[in-house]
Amino acid sequence: MVLFVIGLGLADEHDITLKGFEAVKSSERIYLESYTSILMVPGFKERLEKLYQKPVILAHRETVELEADSILQGAATANVAFLVVGDPLSATTHTDLILRAKQSSPSIPVKIIHNASIMTAIGSSGLAGYNFGQTVSVPFWSEDWKPDSWLERIGENLRIGLHTLALSDIKVREQSAQDMSRGILRYQDPRYMLIPQLISQILSAARSHSVDYLHPDHTLAIALCRMGSEEERIVSGTLQELLDMANPSEQEARAEEAEDDADELASEAELDKRRAARAEARAKKAFGEPLHSLVIVGKRLHPLERDYAASYACPASKFLAVAQDDYACKE
Amino acid sequence: MVLFVIGLGLADEHDITLKGFEAVKSSERIYLESYTSILMVPGFKERLEKLYQKPVILAHRETVELEADSILQGAATANVAFLVVGDPLSATTHTDLILRAKQSSPSIPVKIIHNASIMTAIGSSGLAGYNFGQTVSVPFWSEDWKPDSWLERIGENLRIGLHTLALSDIKVREQSAQDMSRGILRYQDPRYMLIPQLISQILSAARSHSVDYLHPDHTLAIALCRMGSEEERIVSGTLQELLDMANPSEQEARAEEAEDDADELASEAELDKRRAARAEARAKKAFGEPLHSLVIVGKRLHPLERDYAASYACPASKFLAVAQDDYACKE
Repeated sequence: MVLFVIGLGLADEHDITLKGFEAVKSSERIYLESYTSILMVPGFKERLEKLYQKPVILAHRETVELEADSILQGAATANVAFLVVGDPLSATTHTDLILRAKQSSPSIPVKIIHNASIMTAIGSSGLAGYNFGQTVSVPFWSEDWKPDSWLERIGENLRIGLHTLALSDIKVREQSAQDMSRGILRYQDPRYMLIPQLISQILSAARSHSVDYLHPDHTLAIALCRMGSEEERIVSGTLQELLDMANPSEQEARAEEAEDDADELASEAELDKRRAARAEARAKKAFGEPLHSLVIVGKRLHPLERDYAASYACPASKFLAVAQDDYACKE
Repeated sequence: MVLFVIGLGLADEHDITLKGFEAVKSSERIYLESYTSILMVPGFKERLEKLYQKPVILAHRETVELEADSILQGAATANVAFLVVGDPLSATTHTDLILRAKQSSPSIPVKIIHNASIMTAIGSSGLAGYNFGQTVSVPFWSEDWKPDSWLERIGENLRIGLHTLALSDIKVREQSAQDMSRGILRYQDPRYMLIPQLISQILSAARSHSVDYLHPDHTLAIALCRMGSEEERIVSGTLQELLDMANPSEQEARAEEAEDDADELASEAELDKRRAARAEARAKKAFGEPLHSLVIVGKRLHPLERDYAASYACPASKFLAVAQDDYACKE
């Protein structure tokens, strides 16, 4: 029979295609690649089961490889569906499972059912898919680990005038160092990088490498948040303007500082946690819940792209002036 | 109410999402952007009408702008659906209609329903979406018009190791020079560029610019044909190997030449037409019906990408040897 590898699209259970839905209904076993599943609506697995009227088995990314045999078991005699949020092949993550199906004996036919992914949704920014260079992923920095090889890739794109889609990091099924050292298998709450942290890391990396192709006030960007969902939010502006959207006003900052100063019992760690929570709340107020991605606009910006992207400009943005002066986009 | 701009996905009427299907059913008028519609299955409009149980209005690309007012008419009081094959915003073609809806008074809310496009389907080549640079479109050359600015864009990608998706030209609703000069409005049969012509033009442009980044025997490529359809065909190899797949054998070539020589009544124009028909038949035998696209593989090829792409190698292909020797892809 067939191993169906099916994209679920961007936002919720109704983003599957009619073809994908039929394939699911024809399948004896249905796996959901769970790394991405938590990105969607709450209770996603249950919503799928209700829609499909069938049980759905969670397959964790790190175990798909180990469990490939059990996933493929019986696929020679009955259809099996493997569901992936977005498009199933936008990263190479699942090619191993597919290769294994093809190489098994007897060989299991594989059918890919594509769907929209964030790489498709970039069109909603108004920028043409044609004008994008390579996509980068920006990982969470920690105190002592700040990888920034992605910066040079943004530079490669910008130097030839191309736009860049920057995907923000997601941490799921993460264990604390403490738990690991004690041998306790317990996962931390999932973490998602939001627009302000994404931009902060980009600007910080740009400063530390003294690059000339990225500038807080002269580089345009477009925040793409919860694309394809009911809460989709698109905001354009300079990098600094987008960052400022989630900064406290002077008054707020003073009030918070006063509050922290007054709380003499709070430890430095507690205060840090409190500040992080405030920053997160402000980021979510400005840009909504995760997932967030960012498009960094390249110099080949076309007037049609500019006009559409400018319709999402944040209040008092200099988007059009920067497009004219720094991007020479004048028509 | 809402203007729905809905992607229909890659291949046939069942590639619409459940969400898109519901939006269509809730719409009072349904437009189909017809430029792309002919790319799909025969009788596509009728198949949509049967599935939707509603009439579908064809909107020609060149008239969408002119007819925007009539498309948007009534959208303030009833839902209107505008259908586009693939993803509706992968090119900027429809941003004008969307901007106009937003700017009309009262403003018409717009909802984009994304779907897979050829830019998503590249994942089926085994290459990671992350490693692609800009996409290029290769137009049909004529005797006296051979634009090749796309070559430098392929070069920009290859110089930084990135893959390139090359889209082949489509000519629909084309008029002959003769008809135009006589004022006759009559359209030629649609024309689609097939893999052999696409590769021939790429190699010809590379030769005439003496570029060092593209070589028939040392550049790998992957032909993506009718992606997402039942007749999907993926073939990988060097550019020359893919080209050779549609070349006549020596014996065939001799037989055809003899046939042409024997036909003393045929004019040179007739012979040219006959040769073109033979070339087209061979191209379709090797790669199937259109649409065809080509991925040109960049030097940043990862071993996982290589293994998957190599599973589609044409008979006797040197894919793995070239990956090792020219791409330094050795693991």
